[in-house]
Amino acid sequence: MSGSESPPPDLFHPKREDLVLTEVLFALSDPARLEIVRQVAGGTLDMANCHLLNPSAPKSTKSHHMKVLREAGLLRNQPAGRGRLLTLREEDLEARFPGLLRVVLKG
Amino acid sequence: MSGSESPPPDLFHPKREDLVLTEVLFALSDPARLEIVRQVAGGTLDMANCHLLNPSAPKSTKSHHMKVLREAGLLRNQPAGRGRLLTLREEDLEARFPGLLRVVLKG
Repeated sequence: MSGSESPPPDLFHPKREDLVLTEVLFALSDPARLEIVRQVAGGTLDMANCHLLNPSAPKSTKSHHMKVLREAGLLRNQPAGRGRLLTLREEDLEARFPGLLRVVLKG
Repeated sequence: MSGSESPPPDLFHPKREDLVLTEVLFALSDPARLEIVRQVAGGTLDMANCHLLNPSAPKSTKSHHMKVLREAGLLRNQPAGRGRLLTLREEDLEARFPGLLRVVLKG
């Protein structure tokens, strides 16, 4: 998968058992982050193809939202070649907070 | 219900159709507020009998949390005599975001 360059360092991802409901709710409580989760819910997504609600928002805003989502345990963010792949941690979330994702993505 | 004093002015409560998912999630994303919602989920509660997770938190903290919960549409906060009664807006929340309260209160 990776190219000739050294891959970006691994980012922190909380373990399933360390997920905290209020942190997950906080991550989902921003419209831009909820929209990212909706996009990623459709399947693994290249970060470059994941778009903010506000397309003119600075890159740092997108990075910040990605960090909040990853640190709360919503998204897995893994290096893939020169890019990064985003995956919704559906199984972990379902195991810890059954029904939450379904309810929120429907809302 | 009210005593001889004039009742406190009515507070703003959003209408059912104006509830916003991300605002509801934000209101629930604080451990102290989630605990208040859990207490009120047991039935209508006098505000004086509703306790914060941190009992030494200043009164202004409790007022702030109550305001966030009321303005997001989680709680109805109505005058009753010299006090105020808190009620969870279960029907409104269920109508707008089916299953959310159940999932969150279980989590």
